[in-house]
Amino acid sequence: MNSPDRPVCVLGLGLIGGSLMRAVVASGRPAHGWNRSAGAVDAARLDGYDVTGDLETALRRAADERALVVVAVPMTAVDDVLTAVATFAPDCPLTDVVSVKVEMADAVARHGLSAAYVGGHPMAGTAASGWIAADADLFRNAVWVVTVDDGTDPDVWMQVASLALTCGSVVVPARSDEHDRAVARVSHLPHVLAEVLASVGADGGELALRLAAGSFRDGTRVAGTAPALVSAMCDANAAALLEAVDDALARLTRAREILASDSSTTELTRDGHRARSRYEAQLQWWEITDVVVGADGWADAMRDRARAGGVVQRLPARRAVT
Amino acid sequence: MNSPDRPVCVLGLGLIGGSLMRAVVASGRPAHGWNRSAGAVDAARLDGYDVTGDLETALRRAADERALVVVAVPMTAVDDVLTAVATFAPDCPLTDVVSVKVEMADAVARHGLSAAYVGGHPMAGTAASGWIAADADLFRNAVWVVTVDDGTDPDVWMQVASLALTCGSVVVPARSDEHDRAVARVSHLPHVLAEVLASVGADGGELALRLAAGSFRDGTRVAGTAPALVSAMCDANAAALLEAVDDALARLTRAREILASDSSTTELTRDGHRARSRYEAQLQWWEITDVVVGADGWADAMRDRARAGGVVQRLPARRAVT
Repeated sequence: MNSPDRPVCVLGLGLIGGSLMRAVVASGRPAHGWNRSAGAVDAARLDGYDVTGDLETALRRAADERALVVVAVPMTAVDDVLTAVATFAPDCPLTDVVSVKVEMADAVARHGLSAAYVGGHPMAGTAASGWIAADADLFRNAVWVVTVDDGTDPDVWMQVASLALTCGSVVVPARSDEHDRAVARVSHLPHVLAEVLASVGADGGELALRLAAGSFRDGTRVAGTAPALVSAMCDANAAALLEAVDDALARLTRAREILASDSSTTELTRDGHRARSRYEAQLQWWEITDVVVGADGWADAMRDRARAGGVVQRLPARRAVT
Repeated sequence: MNSPDRPVCVLGLGLIGGSLMRAVVASGRPAHGWNRSAGAVDAARLDGYDVTGDLETALRRAADERALVVVAVPMTAVDDVLTAVATFAPDCPLTDVVSVKVEMADAVARHGLSAAYVGGHPMAGTAASGWIAADADLFRNAVWVVTVDDGTDPDVWMQVASLALTCGSVVVPARSDEHDRAVARVSHLPHVLAEVLASVGADGGELALRLAAGSFRDGTRVAGTAPALVSAMCDANAAALLEAVDDALARLTRAREILASDSSTTELTRDGHRARSRYEAQLQWWEITDVVVGADGWADAMRDRARAGGVVQRLPARRAVT
């Protein structure tokens, strides 16, 4: 399991899986893939990619090649795919690009695949979906979470980090539950608020929609994403998202009281502006260079540095196996 | 009052007033302006514009030239400016670019200036502010509301519509209160939700901000606007905004209950997606060509057509004054 450049087997060729396939092949690394619907399989083949509509075939080949298997289907389809992985390629290193990590890790555990699994989540996307929208540059300069939980296998971690770096991303190590709480706030809540805003705007009729300018356009952009994908993402992270929604409800209720009382919304806008400035300021990152993967305490050290704003930009050193 | 091409006097040279000044001058039409702070006056002069830091001077000149006076200061500064208008240029046709129309019309009435006033609101902007951010093309292809209330003077309406068309916008005629309810939903609520989202995201700490991608970036963009401007805008439209916030609270509370009950968020995402699609579909408009300004019932006719998606793209016919 020591070469970080083994072949990649991509299961699911939608926007994320398809972009991953394109990025890996563009880097010169071998990849093959599977997709359930024949339309995407045909389209990917026409574009020159090595893909099949038969999951068993894809996984038997992955097992032969000792490929890194990447699960890139929506959370709702994960169980079926993992059943096949457990049957045909149980020893391959395994990762995923699903947007929730605790529920994914639980599913992997149910199928007895935890030993060779490390979770992943590239923080990139567009409102478009499907192979047709896939783009080899989608992950360039994006942040890609690679989970570091207690008991994470260092070799598999190196494989998954290498995949993210191959696609042009930087790696943020994070515990699965920390990841889920964070994305509830910065990815799933934005989707929920976009859906709410779009509906309230449309309830204002033609005149309201006609007067909508940049703030409405940007604030509702992700409501253009296929509803089933958004629901699958939100539902799978319900517990963490609930906490974020409650925080939003508290702030919105406070704004409501201010508006009803003839006071000024200065606190709301000051807090929001300060928060947005913090977000803009942290677009800068620094490189984690002092953690040796597999050394004592490496998982804790990786997580601590990432919490302080560090990222992995080059494949880190791996402790020699004695 | 019959030439639609009289000079323009712009009071306030921030993002909107400054862009208007640039657009009018670029069209070949004469314009002069005033700004309170000397910094913007100096900057505008350096850029070759005819501006002064003395409000009385600007308004006496507007009265001499029978200029169209445009109030382009924040709502909080409107009363001071209108006091000067009532003193030095009470007979000039008067408009504004303030984001609320009922409170603005009330202020104009308090100063005895209603007869020559027609409200305006260009639906354009950026998170930047000040003369430095002003752009002659800011209003190109934007929607510019020109109010049509009972008793609106047809000649002044023609003046204001002509100004909007000069700046490259299309005109949407609307009653002042209808305008305020509409923009509460599609402009002020997006700002409130952006402030809330930014704060809830930042409450998740460095890791959350690090994982923020496109949905958070777009959903919080307008939280980068100067907080005082956002508060002034929201506070001035508190009653209509309260209604929109309550609608958002109801939808968000419903989403909360769904998440807490282990059900799926399918209704939320389906409604939001449908609403966003409606918004995208109505980016097409049709031209109002059959209303003669000043003819019997013209105000009602204009409003009805605008509610059905019509806009004014060329200066309409004006009923001959008998």
